[in-house]
Amino acid sequence: MNKRILLASASPRRAEILTKMGFREFDIIPAEIDESIIACAPDEYVLSLAKQKAMHVAKSYEGIIIAADTIVALGNEILGKPKDEFDAKNMLEKLSGKKHSVFTGICVIDTMTSKTICDYEKTNVYFKELSDNEINDYIKTGEPMDKAGAYGIQGSACIFVTRIDGCYYNVMGLPAAKLYSILKTIE
Amino acid sequence: MNKRILLASASPRRAEILTKMGFREFDIIPAEIDESIIACAPDEYVLSLAKQKAMHVAKSYEGIIIAADTIVALGNEILGKPKDEFDAKNMLEKLSGKKHSVFTGICVIDTMTSKTICDYEKTNVYFKELSDNEINDYIKTGEPMDKAGAYGIQGSACIFVTRIDGCYYNVMGLPAAKLYSILKTIE
Repeated sequence: MNKRILLASASPRRAEILTKMGFREFDIIPAEIDESIIACAPDEYVLSLAKQKAMHVAKSYEGIIIAADTIVALGNEILGKPKDEFDAKNMLEKLSGKKHSVFTGICVIDTMTSKTICDYEKTNVYFKELSDNEINDYIKTGEPMDKAGAYGIQGSACIFVTRIDGCYYNVMGLPAAKLYSILKTIE
Repeated sequence: MNKRILLASASPRRAEILTKMGFREFDIIPAEIDESIIACAPDEYVLSLAKQKAMHVAKSYEGIIIAADTIVALGNEILGKPKDEFDAKNMLEKLSGKKHSVFTGICVIDTMTSKTICDYEKTNVYFKELSDNEINDYIKTGEPMDKAGAYGIQGSACIFVTRIDGCYYNVMGLPAAKLYSILKTIE
Protein backbone atom coordinates (compact mmCIF):
# COMPACT_ATOMS: atom_id res chain seq x y z
CA MET A 1 0.00 0.00 0.00
CA ASN A 2 1.64 3.24 -1.19
CA LYS A 3 -0.96 5.73 0.00
CA ARG A 4 -0.43 7.82 3.11
CA ILE A 5 -1.91 6.12 6.20
CA LEU A 6 -3.48 8.27 8.91
CA LEU A 7 -4.41 6.83 12.28
CA ALA A 8 -7.19 8.94 13.79
CA SER A 9 -6.33 7.97 17.35
CA ALA A 10 -4.01 9.06 20.16
CA SER A 11 -3.93 5.51 21.63
CA PRO A 12 -0.37 4.14 21.79
CA ARG A 13 -1.87 0.59 21.68
CA ARG A 14 -3.44 1.26 18.28
CA ALA A 15 -0.16 2.61 16.91
CA GLU A 16 1.61 -0.48 18.30
CA ILE A 17 -0.86 -2.82 16.56
CA LEU A 18 -0.48 -0.99 13.21
CA THR A 19 3.29 -1.41 13.56
CA LYS A 20 2.88 -5.15 14.34
CA MET A 21 0.72 -5.42 11.21
CA GLY A 22 3.71 -4.29 9.19
CA PHE A 23 2.98 -0.59 8.61
CA ARG A 24 6.32 1.16 8.90
CA GLU A 25 5.04 4.67 8.27
CA PHE A 26 1.81 6.32 9.31
CA ASP A 27 0.75 9.64 10.78
CA ILE A 28 -1.15 10.02 14.00
CA ILE A 29 -3.97 12.59 13.82
CA PRO A 30 -6.15 12.28 16.92
CA ALA A 31 -9.78 13.26 16.27
CA GLU A 32 -11.27 15.36 19.03
CA ILE A 33 -14.94 14.48 19.14
CA ASP A 34 -17.54 14.24 21.86
CA GLU A 35 -17.29 10.73 23.30
CA SER A 36 -20.05 11.09 25.89
CA ILE A 37 -21.88 7.79 26.10
CA ILE A 38 -25.38 7.99 24.77
CA ALA A 39 -28.15 5.45 25.15
CA CYS A 40 -27.76 3.00 22.29
CA ALA A 41 -26.53 -0.54 21.63
CA PRO A 42 -22.74 -1.04 22.05
CA ASP A 43 -22.20 -1.99 18.40
CA GLU A 44 -24.12 1.11 17.16
CA TYR A 45 -22.21 3.29 19.61
CA VAL A 46 -18.69 2.21 18.55
CA LEU A 47 -19.61 2.25 14.85
CA SER A 48 -20.97 5.79 15.15
CA LEU A 49 -17.93 7.04 17.12
CA ALA A 50 -15.42 5.42 14.72
CA LYS A 51 -17.21 6.95 11.74
CA GLN A 52 -17.34 10.41 13.35
CA LYS A 53 -13.60 10.24 14.10
CA ALA A 54 -12.71 9.14 10.55
CA MET A 55 -14.93 11.82 8.95
CA HIS A 56 -13.49 14.50 11.24
CA VAL A 57 -9.95 13.72 10.04
CA ALA A 58 -11.11 13.33 6.41
CA LYS A 59 -12.19 17.01 6.43
CA SER A 60 -8.57 18.18 6.69
CA TYR A 61 -6.32 15.34 5.47
CA GLU A 62 -5.86 13.12 2.45
CA GLY A 63 -4.99 9.41 2.52
CA ILE A 64 -6.28 6.20 4.03
CA ILE A 65 -7.82 7.18 7.36
CA ILE A 66 -8.18 4.53 10.07
CA ALA A 67 -10.38 5.35 13.06
CA ALA A 68 -11.55 3.17 15.92
CA ASP A 69 -13.49 3.33 19.14
CA THR A 70 -13.50 0.74 21.92
CA ILE A 71 -15.91 0.23 24.82
CA VAL A 72 -16.63 -2.46 27.40
CA ALA A 73 -20.20 -3.73 27.75
CA LEU A 74 -21.31 -5.47 30.93
CA GLY A 75 -24.89 -6.58 30.44
CA ASN A 76 -26.73 -3.41 29.45
CA GLU A 77 -24.11 -1.09 30.88
CA ILE A 78 -21.43 0.57 28.74
CA LEU A 79 -18.09 1.29 30.42
CA GLY A 80 -15.83 3.89 28.84
CA LYS A 81 -12.61 5.27 30.32
CA PRO A 82 -12.70 5.82 34.10
CA LYS A 83 -13.01 9.44 35.27
CA ASP A 84 -10.76 8.89 38.31
CA GLU A 85 -9.33 6.14 40.51
CA PHE A 86 -12.59 5.77 42.41
CA ASP A 87 -14.42 5.19 39.12
CA ALA A 88 -11.71 2.71 38.03
CA LYS A 89 -12.13 0.72 41.25
CA ASN A 90 -15.87 0.67 40.75
CA MET A 91 -15.50 -0.65 37.18
CA LEU A 92 -13.03 -3.40 38.18
CA GLU A 93 -15.33 -4.51 41.02
CA LYS A 94 -18.12 -4.83 38.47
CA LEU A 95 -15.95 -6.88 36.07
CA SER A 96 -14.64 -9.22 38.83
CA GLY A 97 -15.62 -12.87 38.32
CA LYS A 98 -17.77 -12.07 35.29
CA LYS A 99 -17.87 -12.20 31.53
CA HIS A 100 -18.03 -8.90 29.65
CA SER A 101 -17.82 -7.93 25.99
CA VAL A 102 -15.38 -5.60 24.31
CA PHE A 103 -16.64 -3.81 21.19
CA THR A 104 -14.38 -1.96 18.80
CA GLY A 105 -15.83 -0.05 15.87
CA ILE A 106 -13.50 0.67 12.99
CA CYS A 107 -13.98 2.99 10.07
CA VAL A 108 -11.60 3.24 7.12
CA ILE A 109 -11.93 6.04 4.54
CA ASP A 110 -9.89 6.39 1.37
CA THR A 111 -10.20 10.14 0.74
CA MET A 112 -9.05 9.79 -2.91
CA THR A 113 -11.93 7.47 -3.87
CA SER A 114 -14.29 8.33 -0.95
CA LYS A 115 -14.63 4.59 -0.34
CA THR A 116 -15.70 4.09 3.28
CA ILE A 117 -15.89 0.81 5.17
CA CYS A 118 -17.14 0.58 8.74
CA ASP A 119 -17.40 -2.57 10.81
CA TYR A 120 -17.08 -3.71 14.40
CA GLU A 121 -15.68 -6.65 16.29
CA LYS A 122 -16.92 -8.17 19.55
CA THR A 123 -14.81 -10.24 21.96
CA ASN A 124 -16.02 -11.85 25.16
CA VAL A 125 -13.59 -11.56 28.06
CA TYR A 126 -13.73 -13.61 31.27
CA PHE A 127 -12.29 -12.18 34.50
CA LYS A 128 -11.35 -14.24 37.53
CA GLU A 129 -12.68 -13.08 40.94
CA LEU A 130 -10.58 -10.09 41.96
CA SER A 131 -9.67 -9.41 45.59
CA ASP A 132 -9.65 -5.90 47.00
CA ASN A 133 -5.84 -6.06 47.19
CA GLU A 134 -5.54 -7.11 43.56
CA ILE A 135 -7.74 -4.21 42.44
CA ASN A 136 -5.86 -1.68 44.59
CA ASP A 137 -2.45 -2.93 43.44
CA TYR A 138 -3.58 -2.73 39.82
CA ILE A 139 -4.90 0.82 40.20
CA LYS A 140 -1.52 1.82 41.71
CA THR A 141 0.18 0.85 38.41
CA GLY A 142 -1.70 3.71 36.71
CA GLU A 143 -2.65 1.38 33.86
CA PRO A 144 -6.48 1.65 34.21
CA MET A 145 -6.79 5.39 33.71
CA ASP A 146 -6.77 5.79 29.92
CA LYS A 147 -8.54 2.53 29.06
CA ALA A 148 -12.16 1.52 28.47
CA GLY A 149 -13.34 -0.68 31.36
CA ALA A 150 -10.30 0.42 33.44
CA TYR A 151 -7.95 -2.36 32.33
CA GLY A 152 -5.47 -3.20 29.58
CA ILE A 153 -5.26 -6.89 28.64
CA GLN A 154 -1.69 -6.37 27.37
CA GLY A 155 -0.36 -5.16 30.74
CA SER A 156 -0.38 -6.54 34.26
CA ALA A 157 -4.14 -7.23 34.06
CA CYS A 158 -3.08 -10.31 32.08
CA ILE A 159 -3.46 -12.27 35.34
CA PHE A 160 -7.13 -11.24 35.61
CA VAL A 161 -8.17 -12.68 32.23
CA THR A 162 -8.78 -16.43 32.31
CA ARG A 163 -10.02 -16.63 28.72
CA ILE A 164 -11.30 -14.65 25.77
CA ASP A 165 -13.58 -15.71 22.92
CA GLY A 166 -12.79 -13.64 19.84
CA CYS A 167 -10.02 -11.37 18.61
CA TYR A 168 -7.34 -10.44 21.18
CA TYR A 169 -6.27 -7.27 19.38
CA ASN A 170 -9.87 -6.10 19.48
CA VAL A 171 -9.58 -6.06 23.28
CA MET A 172 -6.39 -3.98 22.92
CA GLY A 173 -8.31 -1.49 20.77
CA LEU A 174 -7.82 -2.45 17.12
CA PRO A 175 -8.91 -5.81 15.61
CA ALA A 176 -5.84 -6.54 13.46
CA ALA A 177 -7.24 -9.35 11.27
CA LYS A 178 -10.47 -7.44 10.55
CA LEU A 179 -8.61 -4.21 9.76
CA TYR A 180 -6.28 -6.11 7.46
CA SER A 181 -9.21 -7.55 5.52
CA ILE A 182 -10.89 -4.11 5.27
CA LEU A 183 -7.65 -2.60 3.93
CA LYS A 184 -7.41 -5.41 1.34
CA THR A 185 -10.96 -4.56 0.18
CA ILE A 186 -10.44 -0.80 0.02
CA GLU A 187 -7.09 -1.02 -1.81
CA MET B 1 6.62 -13.66 46.95
CA ASN B 2 10.11 -13.39 48.46
CA LYS B 3 11.56 -16.68 47.21
CA ARG B 4 13.93 -16.82 44.26
CA ILE B 5 12.06 -17.38 41.00
CA LEU B 6 13.69 -19.49 38.28
CA LEU B 7 12.28 -19.63 34.78
CA ALA B 8 13.34 -22.93 33.18
CA SER B 9 13.02 -21.58 29.63
CA ALA B 10 15.09 -19.69 27.08
CA SER B 11 11.96 -18.21 25.43
CA PRO B 12 12.00 -14.39 25.49
CA ARG B 13 8.16 -14.48 25.29
CA ARG B 14 7.92 -16.37 28.59
CA ALA B 15 10.28 -13.89 30.28
CA GLU B 16 8.18 -11.03 28.87
CA ILE B 17 4.97 -12.55 30.29
CA LEU B 18 6.53 -13.06 33.74
CA THR B 19 7.55 -9.38 33.68
CA LYS B 20 4.01 -8.35 32.66
CA MET B 21 2.71 -10.41 35.60
CA GLY B 22 4.71 -8.14 37.90
CA PHE B 23 7.83 -10.22 38.60
CA ARG B 24 10.70 -7.76 38.66
CA GLU B 25 13.45 -10.29 39.38
CA PHE B 26 13.87 -13.84 38.18
CA ASP B 27 16.66 -15.99 36.82
CA ILE B 28 16.55 -17.71 33.47
CA ILE B 29 17.89 -21.28 33.59
CA PRO B 30 17.04 -23.04 30.32
CA ALA B 31 16.58 -26.81 30.75
CA GLU B 32 18.19 -28.81 27.97
CA ILE B 33 16.05 -31.88 27.55
CA ASP B 34 15.08 -34.08 24.64
CA GLU B 35 12.03 -32.46 23.03
CA SER B 36 11.55 -35.03 20.27
CA ILE B 37 7.84 -35.50 19.75
CA ILE B 38 6.64 -38.90 20.80
CA ALA B 39 3.30 -40.50 20.05
CA CYS B 40 0.96 -39.36 22.82
CA ALA B 41 -1.93 -36.95 23.39
CA PRO B 42 -0.97 -33.23 23.24
CA ASP B 43 -1.93 -32.57 26.88
CA GLU B 44 0.14 -35.55 28.11
CA TYR B 45 3.07 -34.46 25.94
CA VAL B 46 3.25 -30.85 27.21
CA LEU B 47 2.66 -31.92 30.83
CA SER B 48 5.47 -34.46 30.59
CA LEU B 49 7.90 -32.00 28.95
CA ALA B 50 7.13 -29.20 31.43
CA LYS B 51 7.66 -31.60 34.34
CA GLN B 52 10.95 -32.90 32.91
CA LYS B 53 12.22 -29.33 32.45
CA ALA B 54 11.26 -28.29 36.00
CA MET B 55 12.80 -31.44 37.55
CA HIS B 56 15.98 -30.96 35.52
CA VAL B 57 16.47 -27.44 36.95
CA ALA B 58 15.41 -28.57 40.48
CA LYS B 59 18.42 -30.93 40.56
CA SER B 60 20.85 -28.00 40.62
CA TYR B 61 18.96 -24.93 41.86
CA GLU B 62 16.82 -23.83 44.80
CA GLY B 63 13.72 -21.66 44.60
CA ILE B 64 10.37 -21.58 42.83
CA ILE B 65 10.96 -23.20 39.45
CA ILE B 66 8.59 -22.41 36.59
CA ALA B 67 8.78 -24.59 33.47
CA ALA B 68 6.55 -24.72 30.42
CA ASP B 69 6.24 -26.41 27.08
CA THR B 70 4.05 -25.32 24.16
CA ILE B 71 2.91 -27.21 21.08
CA VAL B 72 0.37 -26.76 18.32
CA ALA B 73 -2.09 -29.57 17.62
CA LEU B 74 -3.87 -29.80 14.28
CA GLY B 75 -6.25 -32.73 14.43
CA ASN B 76 -4.07 -35.67 15.43
CA GLU B 77 -0.83 -34.02 14.33
CA ILE B 78 1.51 -32.27 16.76
CA LEU B 79 3.54 -29.35 15.38
CA GLY B 80 6.65 -28.29 17.27
CA LYS B 81 9.22 -25.74 16.10
CA PRO B 82 9.98 -25.85 12.36
CA LYS B 83 13.31 -27.41 11.36
CA ASP B 84 13.86 -24.96 8.49
CA GLU B 85 12.01 -22.49 6.26
CA PHE B 86 10.61 -25.28 4.10
CA ASP B 87 9.16 -26.94 7.20
CA ALA B 88 7.77 -23.56 8.37
CA LYS B 89 6.02 -23.05 5.03
CA ASN B 90 4.57 -26.53 5.23
CA MET B 91 3.20 -25.88 8.74
CA LEU B 92 1.65 -22.50 7.79
CA GLU B 93 -0.02 -24.07 4.75
CA LYS B 94 -1.55 -26.68 7.05
CA LEU B 95 -2.82 -24.03 9.50
CA SER B 96 -4.29 -21.80 6.73
CA GLY B 97 -8.08 -21.38 6.97
CA LYS B 98 -8.38 -23.83 9.86
CA LYS B 99 -8.82 -24.08 13.60
CA HIS B 100 -5.95 -25.53 15.63
CA SER B 101 -5.27 -25.91 19.34
CA VAL B 102 -2.32 -24.59 21.31
CA PHE B 103 -1.38 -26.58 24.41
CA THR B 104 0.98 -25.28 27.07
CA GLY B 105 2.00 -27.49 29.97
CA ILE B 106 3.29 -25.75 33.07
CA CYS B 107 5.05 -27.22 36.06
CA VAL B 108 5.92 -25.26 39.19
CA ILE B 109 8.20 -26.74 41.88
CA ASP B 110 9.03 -25.14 45.21
CA THR B 111 12.34 -26.86 46.01
CA MET B 112 12.16 -25.86 49.70
CA THR B 113 8.88 -27.71 50.32
CA SER B 114 9.04 -30.07 47.30
CA LYS B 115 5.49 -28.97 46.46
CA THR B 116 4.92 -29.59 42.74
CA ILE B 117 1.95 -28.44 40.68
CA CYS B 118 1.55 -29.32 37.00
CA ASP B 119 -1.31 -28.28 34.77
CA TYR B 120 -1.97 -27.39 31.17
CA GLU B 121 -4.03 -24.90 29.21
CA LYS B 122 -5.64 -25.32 25.79
CA THR B 123 -6.60 -22.46 23.46
CA ASN B 124 -8.30 -22.83 20.09
CA VAL B 125 -6.91 -20.52 17.41
CA TYR B 126 -8.62 -19.72 14.08
CA PHE B 127 -6.51 -18.75 11.07
CA LYS B 128 -7.84 -16.94 8.00
CA GLU B 129 -7.00 -18.44 4.59
CA LEU B 130 -3.37 -17.55 3.87
CA SER B 131 -2.13 -16.76 0.36
CA ASP B 132 1.25 -17.98 -0.86
CA ASN B 133 2.51 -14.37 -0.76
CA GLU B 134 1.37 -13.89 2.82
CA ILE B 135 3.16 -17.08 3.91
CA ASN B 136 6.35 -16.16 2.04
CA ASP B 137 6.35 -12.60 3.41
CA TYR B 138 5.86 -13.90 6.91
CA ILE B 139 8.69 -16.42 6.62
CA LYS B 140 10.97 -13.58 5.44
CA THR B 141 10.45 -11.82 8.80
CA GLY B 142 12.27 -14.73 10.49
CA GLU B 143 9.54 -14.88 13.15
CA PRO B 144 8.41 -18.51 12.50
CA MET B 145 11.71 -20.22 13.19
CA ASP B 146 11.81 -20.54 16.99
CA LYS B 147 8.08 -21.00 17.53
CA ALA B 148 5.78 -24.02 17.79
CA GLY B 149 3.53 -24.17 14.70
CA ALA B 150 5.82 -21.65 12.92
CA TYR B 151 4.01 -18.50 14.07
CA GLY B 152 3.94 -16.03 16.95
CA ILE B 153 0.52 -14.51 17.70
CA GLN B 154 2.20 -11.45 19.28
CA GLY B 155 4.08 -10.48 16.09
CA SER B 156 3.08 -9.80 12.51
CA ALA B 157 1.04 -13.06 12.39
CA CYS B 158 -1.59 -11.03 14.28
CA ILE B 159 -3.28 -10.47 10.91
CA PHE B 160 -3.65 -14.26 10.41
CA VAL B 161 -5.63 -14.86 13.62
CA THR B 162 -9.32 -14.03 13.30
CA ARG B 163 -10.26 -15.31 16.76
CA ILE B 164 -9.12 -17.37 19.70
CA ASP B 165 -11.15 -19.24 22.31
CA GLY B 166 -9.19 -19.44 25.54
CA CYS B 167 -6.16 -17.77 27.10
CA TYR B 168 -4.12 -15.51 24.79
CA TYR B 169 -0.93 -15.78 26.85
CA ASN B 170 -1.16 -19.54 26.52
CA VAL B 171 -0.71 -19.10 22.76
CA MET B 172 2.35 -16.91 23.47
CA GLY B 173 3.79 -19.74 25.61
CA LEU B 174 2.79 -19.12 29.23
CA PRO B 175 -0.84 -18.97 30.47
CA ALA B 176 -0.56 -15.95 32.80
CA ALA B 177 -3.84 -16.32 34.73
CA LYS B 178 -3.31 -20.07 35.32
CA LEU B 179 0.31 -19.60 36.40
CA TYR B 180 -0.79 -16.84 38.79
CA SER B 181 -3.36 -19.13 40.41
CA ILE B 182 -0.78 -21.98 40.70
CA LEU B 183 1.70 -19.60 42.36
CA LYS B 184 -0.99 -18.48 44.83
CA THR B 185 -1.62 -22.15 45.75
CA ILE B 186 2.05 -23.06 46.12
CA GLU B 187 2.92 -19.97 48.20
